[in-house]
Amino acid sequence: MKNLLSMEHLTNRELISIILRAEEFERGEQPTLARSYNIANLFFEPSTRTSTSFEMAERKLGCTIIPFDANFSSALKGETMYDTVKTLEMIGLDAVVIRAKEDEYYNELLEGINVAVINAGDGAGQHPSQSLLDLYTIHKEFGQFEGLNVTIAGDISHSRVAKSNAIALRNLGVNVRYLCPPEWAGDFEAHHSWDGLIEDSDVVMLLRVQHERHAVNSGFSKESYHEQYGLTVERASKMKKNAIIMHPAPVNRDVEITSELVESERSRIFSQVRNGVYVRMAILETILKGRE
Amino acid sequence: MKNLLSMEHLTNRELISIILRAEEFERGEQPTLARSYNIANLFFEPSTRTSTSFEMAERKLGCTIIPFDANFSSALKGETMYDTVKTLEMIGLDAVVIRAKEDEYYNELLEGINVAVINAGDGAGQHPSQSLLDLYTIHKEFGQFEGLNVTIAGDISHSRVAKSNAIALRNLGVNVRYLCPPEWAGDFEAHHSWDGLIEDSDVVMLLRVQHERHAVNSGFSKESYHEQYGLTVERASKMKKNAIIMHPAPVNRDVEITSELVESERSRIFSQVRNGVYVRMAILETILKGRE
Amino acid sequence: MKNLLSMEHLTNRELISIILRAEEFERGEQPTLARSYNIANLFFEPSTRTSTSFEMAERKLGCTIIPFDANFSSALKGETMYDTVKTLEMIGLDAVVIRAKEDEYYNELLEGINVAVINAGDGAGQHPSQSLLDLYTIHKEFGQFEGLNVTIAGDISHSRVAKSNAIALRNLGVNVRYLCPPEWAGDFEAHHSWDGLIEDSDVVMLLRVQHERHAVNSGFSKESYHEQYGLTVERASKMKKNAIIMHPAPVNRDVEITSELVESERSRIFSQVRNGVYVRMAILETILKGRE
Repeated sequence: MKNLLSMEHLTNRELISIILRAEEFERGEQPTLARSYNIANLFFEPSTRTSTSFEMAERKLGCTIIPFDANFSSALKGETMYDTVKTLEMIGLDAVVIRAKEDEYYNELLEGINVAVINAGDGAGQHPSQSLLDLYTIHKEFGQFEGLNVTIAGDISHSRVAKSNAIALRNLGVNVRYLCPPEWAGDFEAHHSWDGLIEDSDVVMLLRVQHERHAVNSGFSKESYHEQYGLTVERASKMKKNAIIMHPAPVNRDVEITSELVESERSRIFSQVRNGVYVRMAILETILKGRE
Repeated sequence: MKNLLSMEHLTNRELISIILRAEEFERGEQPTLARSYNIANLFFEPSTRTSTSFEMAERKLGCTIIPFDANFSSALKGETMYDTVKTLEMIGLDAVVIRAKEDEYYNELLEGINVAVINAGDGAGQHPSQSLLDLYTIHKEFGQFEGLNVTIAGDISHSRVAKSNAIALRNLGVNVRYLCPPEWAGDFEAHHSWDGLIEDSDVVMLLRVQHERHAVNSGFSKESYHEQYGLTVERASKMKKNAIIMHPAPVNRDVEITSELVESERSRIFSQVRNGVYVRMAILETILKGRE
Repeated sequence: MKNLLSMEHLTNRELISIILRAEEFERGEQPTLARSYNIANLFFEPSTRTSTSFEMAERKLGCTIIPFDANFSSALKGETMYDTVKTLEMIGLDAVVIRAKEDEYYNELLEGINVAVINAGDGAGQHPSQSLLDLYTIHKEFGQFEGLNVTIAGDISHSRVAKSNAIALRNLGVNVRYLCPPEWAGDFEAHHSWDGLIEDSDVVMLLRVQHERHAVNSGFSKESYHEQYGLTVERASKMKKNAIIMHPAPVNRDVEITSELVESERSRIFSQVRNGVYVRMAILETILKGRE
């Protein structure tokens, strides 16, 4: 594994290997890198949890982090992504973690670039490290994937998480179902009501209503979205005994989910954040070891 | 001491213990923390000196600092302060230093949050680490507090420093007097002329004229403010033999104080900055040791 | 060498000594600083490569870097550069690297400031660390300077690089020629055509067309600039056997230079970036050792 760009490039074997390594890190195993690697985090879009999670993972791996202020960089002067990353390579970076607005921005980095590239979200494309932490969270809970019912609910057509997860979960034998307002389904075949879905879901995976991306005003108030598509206390009460609630966060409380459920017993929302550090350690270690 | 939120929560004993520990650090004593703690500095308002001072104190304590760009965070997506801080807790942070625009923003962090919270300024509320470094500066100078005359001059009703210091200084037996234009007194009982105040002050504590906070245009030119309420060379010449000048900075030169006085013999303005690092080391060490 | 402010302050001897030290760093020699120095990088203008290059050099020298967000600092509150830097001195900084919009901003730092100041670009003034890395790049290639023909092409009158390099190259016995549209020559005596220049140049040093600085719209389209003043494949084919292409970057591809030449055999554009780290290590080590 030289880079991590899209879930489509990952084999089930690679994916499981990352999950197992994350598990080892969570149990307290130490990383085994030969030296301190130089890493920069290029976040052209805001993201508290992804950037701080990568930062923490990098520290735990003993990396040297070179700060990069994407909002104040030569990209503003029209420099191409290729030239920006090539420059960082020349300065001595070993890997870059990138979040950018453009779908598949990484295509221009496939040739001529020798630093490792870890995609931390590309436009309306993928978000593979989030997807891997979701898979890790599910695996920790159920020990395997085959035959699980996972319901992904929300702004599906605009969600990087929905896309990344759909590919991986299907490959792992999971039964993936979608729930969303008809206007938000895009190319997905989706349910438009919780009836019949909530009762047999092993995982209810809520997506953020992405106000800031939503091109079309869909005519929903927060209240009506919550009522029809949100996870309410009443709906949560119908969930199976061991079923869990997930959300990539940040949460719009009382929109996707009733506020009091966010830290309820079924919720793994904050555990996902904790899991993310171990998963990102596993991703980075795997990629950096490939360079040794 | 689990957190540092407001001077109101500190006993005189806790306060003195921080001052004495800062003194030890200034004399060259080494910190005695059991491990490297993870800290993030969340500055939702700009502040060169407070943020770099905390950064330096954290380095000297051997902390690992996870960068957090408040202006580019999920708070922009409407995430609550609780969710932001809980996320950082899950990522592995031990403490967060926060400056925010909202008065008492920390109230939503009192329940359910297990990281330590150090308030580095809340709206028009308090700024306890600044207050403690002011107290340290006075203590270094006079060896005690009882019976000192401290005159706080300037934009009192909008000043976090005035509020924080008033509470603590009074508790320590200091005679605190205020000087400001009538329009700026707020709930404080204030003098409106230096006559009779300058001559017996042990400490003249000037406050920044906070253009950026001042809701009402008070009809003062910089020149007329300086003339009536600023510390001029003539006024400074009337000060007692060992009296000192303080200012939390940044200074508006020739507004609160005549420029040439900023680095005069009586001035402790830049010493305050130096003292701040030792005081913040003491604050952080005290709080982090409480977690061991 | 206490500071690095302008190429005009450097003797040939100091300059050569930095070049030779950079060469040693490139060969793998270790820095010899007595302790970990505290440094802050104050970038009031965006610059990916200069700021990350300094960061990397500082790490390699074992420095402690205190983050400073220039766009979110007390400078916004009107604090003077002197007070900002004096504050950092009081906090414990040993050196500051500054890029600022004002020409010769450093003049207010010459008295009363005890931290070392390294100028990383001042307005339309100088950019001495870039100049030194250019000199290092030329020296690496040709082993000496005397009698070389260097053609500097582009937006000369607005270029910090042109100014810094002109001074140093002439002092070193280089034959410097300028090429630019008549409107952009400023006080420089410039050629307006490549004819006769391209064939005997040892170094073609292209400058960025600085859209963001250009006060006057000069009436050029990118295409017409490229055709008349850019380095095209045809022009490059006329260059001498060992002649090289340089550019301080970021490059406007197909404006100053045809895109495919950027990574051609003659190009040292990305090597310059790599060289910059060694040169900045040499600059910082020299200045910091002067403080021991």
